[in-house]
Amino acid sequence: MSSKKLKVIPIGGLGEVGKNMMLYEYGENILIVDTGMMFPENDMLGIDYIIPDFEYVRERKDIVRGIVFTHGHQDHIGAVSHIVEEISAPLYATPLTRGLIEVKLSEDKLLNKANLNTIHAGDEFNVGPFKVEAFHVCHSIPDTVGLGITSPAGLVVHASDYKFDPTPVDGWPTDFAKLADFSGRGVLALLADSTNADQAGWTPSEKMLDGALDKIFQDAPGRIIIASFASLVSRMKQVAEAAERHGRKMAFVGYSMRQNSDMAHELGYLNIPSHVLVDLNEALNLPPQDVVLMATGSQGEPYSIMGRLSRGTNRRFDLLDDDTIVLSSHTIPGNEESVYQTINRLFQRGANVVYAPLSHIHVSGHAKQDEMKLMINLVKPKHLIPVHGELRHMKQHAILAEESGFPGENIAVVENGQVIEFKDGEMTIGERIPGGYVFVDGVRVGDIGPSVVREREALAQEGVVTISIVLNHKARLQTEPEISSRGFVYKHGDSDIIEETKKKVIELVKKTEGDIHNQVVKSIRSFLYSKTKKRPIVLVTISWV
Amino acid sequence: MSSKKLKVIPIGGLGEVGKNMMLYEYGENILIVDTGMMFPENDMLGIDYIIPDFEYVRERKDIVRGIVFTHGHQDHIGAVSHIVEEISAPLYATPLTRGLIEVKLSEDKLLNKANLNTIHAGDEFNVGPFKVEAFHVCHSIPDTVGLGITSPAGLVVHASDYKFDPTPVDGWPTDFAKLADFSGRGVLALLADSTNADQAGWTPSEKMLDGALDKIFQDAPGRIIIASFASLVSRMKQVAEAAERHGRKMAFVGYSMRQNSDMAHELGYLNIPSHVLVDLNEALNLPPQDVVLMATGSQGEPYSIMGRLSRGTNRRFDLLDDDTIVLSSHTIPGNEESVYQTINRLFQRGANVVYAPLSHIHVSGHAKQDEMKLMINLVKPKHLIPVHGELRHMKQHAILAEESGFPGENIAVVENGQVIEFKDGEMTIGERIPGGYVFVDGVRVGDIGPSVVREREALAQEGVVTISIVLNHKARLQTEPEISSRGFVYKHGDSDIIEETKKKVIELVKKTEGDIHNQVVKSIRSFLYSKTKKRPIVLVTISWV
Repeated sequence: MSSKKLKVIPIGGLGEVGKNMMLYEYGENILIVDTGMMFPENDMLGIDYIIPDFEYVRERKDIVRGIVFTHGHQDHIGAVSHIVEEISAPLYATPLTRGLIEVKLSEDKLLNKANLNTIHAGDEFNVGPFKVEAFHVCHSIPDTVGLGITSPAGLVVHASDYKFDPTPVDGWPTDFAKLADFSGRGVLALLADSTNADQAGWTPSEKMLDGALDKIFQDAPGRIIIASFASLVSRMKQVAEAAERHGRKMAFVGYSMRQNSDMAHELGYLNIPSHVLVDLNEALNLPPQDVVLMATGSQGEPYSIMGRLSRGTNRRFDLLDDDTIVLSSHTIPGNEESVYQTINRLFQRGANVVYAPLSHIHVSGHAKQDEMKLMINLVKPKHLIPVHGELRHMKQHAILAEESGFPGENIAVVENGQVIEFKDGEMTIGERIPGGYVFVDGVRVGDIGPSVVREREALAQEGVVTISIVLNHKARLQTEPEISSRGFVYKHGDSDIIEETKKKVIELVKKTEGDIHNQVVKSIRSFLYSKTKKRPIVLVTISWV
Repeated sequence: MSSKKLKVIPIGGLGEVGKNMMLYEYGENILIVDTGMMFPENDMLGIDYIIPDFEYVRERKDIVRGIVFTHGHQDHIGAVSHIVEEISAPLYATPLTRGLIEVKLSEDKLLNKANLNTIHAGDEFNVGPFKVEAFHVCHSIPDTVGLGITSPAGLVVHASDYKFDPTPVDGWPTDFAKLADFSGRGVLALLADSTNADQAGWTPSEKMLDGALDKIFQDAPGRIIIASFASLVSRMKQVAEAAERHGRKMAFVGYSMRQNSDMAHELGYLNIPSHVLVDLNEALNLPPQDVVLMATGSQGEPYSIMGRLSRGTNRRFDLLDDDTIVLSSHTIPGNEESVYQTINRLFQRGANVVYAPLSHIHVSGHAKQDEMKLMINLVKPKHLIPVHGELRHMKQHAILAEESGFPGENIAVVENGQVIEFKDGEMTIGERIPGGYVFVDGVRVGDIGPSVVREREALAQEGVVTISIVLNHKARLQTEPEISSRGFVYKHGDSDIIEETKKKVIELVKKTEGDIHNQVVKSIRSFLYSKTKKRPIVLVTISWV
């Protein structure tokens, strides 16, 4: 053991700890694992997406030795362009993950700037003083790896997102042997996925879905349209296999589905027989009962294929009678309302919709309680750091571990920014580094903070009324005040309340001595509240002529 | 059978069919069942609540013979004041439902105007030509009734919200005998709850919760705080019984919990022994391990007790170490994000939080699939009209019925406003009456429509920039333009973009011939988009001096 400290630092993300970015710092060396983004919560109005606040890394960019990616989901790679713009360390990723990173970097014209290196599960490579061993884990995207990270302080197992599917669609189960090998060498700490820590049992195998798909393929009188995530390559394969079993042709619909299926095909992760796969045009000209389409939009996004089909605004094709639509996905928390609205609209337009819990047409990509216990028993770490979950999940992960006999004092449930230090085999909780997450709003990164979002919230709830006043040098009105509004009254033009507001402003200016601006804001606010019980934002501008 | 038609009309509500208001019209007679309200969906910005658009009833108010209420939930009684203001027909409700209606009418100073009549399960009474038989059903609020409605056209069973709990907490199961009696007399149509039509099996009995509560009471090292719905009187009783078994004192926290428990006590629906029930002050002075509190806030509402405790802003008391918080409720779709945020905050402040699926501490108030089939088998209706659900639920209800051999052509899945007609024992689908639902926004009822909500959506996503221009008679600037914004830039005062906008406006006015207003709106919009990739609402006012 070294006398230097190993610092483990989850960097800011939204709610979930260490999911978007994790730092390992040993002496003057930093290893970054993942650089992801998050989508905003419903009350973060107008925000496009969220990235970790990586000021801590920015200040230490010269000691960043490398960035290793565990898998290609947006919450693990989505901020890569923001990082590559500022930090020039080499990137390491498995082939599919690398492909998805290249797509992002190309879009942002940063591909030339990035030093990308391909790794494979089973590889061992050095990043500064860190020896990194990538090992395969099952997850809802192929080519996911966990990492054994050895520094002079000891071996840390970074399990990232994983599950123990005994019969995954790609036939490649989680690498038990490597986990046992780690355990034999002695593991200082395990960092592992907490996403499903409040779910009892074991996540069912992907294999289980074949039966549900068979039933749907048997029963569907016409076309089948399956909505899922564009990164869920195993689901593409299962649908293709079901299509083959039931004599249907399959086509992918939409840019991201086509792009990802093409990439998975090129890289050898998806092999659909050519007599099954057709392009969309061909599929649309076949008899409906011979076709299955696969598209995005399982979250009810209004501009996705599903969103447009549900509103009758899809350009290439419309719903047909006897279409069967299958939502082969889970609903991301916060999206429930839009998913249900989309389902109702699809029914309204005559489709039959199959969704959970009506059919078992999705399984999670994350371990459940019994798998979490198995992971702990396999790896036998000295310390446990639950990660990849909201606080409630990590607390449950800790409770599960304690129930299985893990000593509570060796578990660290922390929030983003909390430094965990290891020295001489002991874990201590260090400082909390400042920062959290950064809003990306249009092209502006970090310029828009909570105060602007609060203003948007007020605009959203109450609307806005603007009052333009022109005063002469005697502080008297030079012309009539102009009143305008949005989100407040229906027929602005012939609204009584706008007319009354104008009269009120004229009166106020007449009688006010002193701060006219403040007086008008205050009085008109309370006038509008008394009339409507709403508190629109009142914006007053005064021009002096 | 009469030659007159019976019309059955579900009146507008949000998404769910016939839940808020249902009409039975026979000749020149209307019977109304329930007058409820709905809470807005997340994208209905600023709207306080929603009521049915009852224009159809308003136009026929002289032939409304009575309004019968099935139970006291807000989605069945919440619009009563709006109705009573305009329609003077007698109201009929069971004692608890009447009590809750009286609270609403008192708040709106309408109690004197209402002709309220108490009914009991088992009663038979006439409303115009309709013979109404109220029968007890189990639901998540006591004193719920279904209605047998006999007109010359036949007997319609309005089952409303129900479940078949064999061991309800109040010992009063659903009235099987009456359902069998109806069946013997021949039922023209059954209207029944579809809420849980996508849930397999049978809703567990409330009795089942006792075990989960016992485990929580045994394990909790300190105070227990149970969050639930203020109308869930059976849960109050179960918590009181658990408190007695485990030697704790119980107190209700918050206005609605105290009001409803007091009313339930006075009316005989809730009898908590005096050695168990204490007031909050006393509870706060007892040792924590001797106390259980019951409060609202299970939906993560920011200003509820739970919301305030999670933020450390509750006035009367704060969280203690070792507090156990129990969310004994389900999450209403759309509230998931705020519920999870609240749970995370409670954990962050040191409490242990028990919530589904970690413990079985809630059961639904609605029938599941097997109960729906049982209802159909008991009542043996000729026709089935699934109600009380979104379209997806009613479609499933229909599928379930067909699976159990019910003829598909005798099932009507309709949306709000769709008239269903019965004549000579046959069902036909009639016209669709106009109207949907009405937004209540502050004191304004129906003045705010979708267009104002869309403006609020734009304000919420993009913010607003206002530009005041003062022009002289030569259409030249008399003074500098004033620019203001909300929800668009952080530091408005020293923002480059606002300064640049001002310069741009000055240039534009200089060079524009013709419609200055339009030119400024158009050019500034595209200028701001090019700079920020955001499209704030640009409000330009021009004053001529």
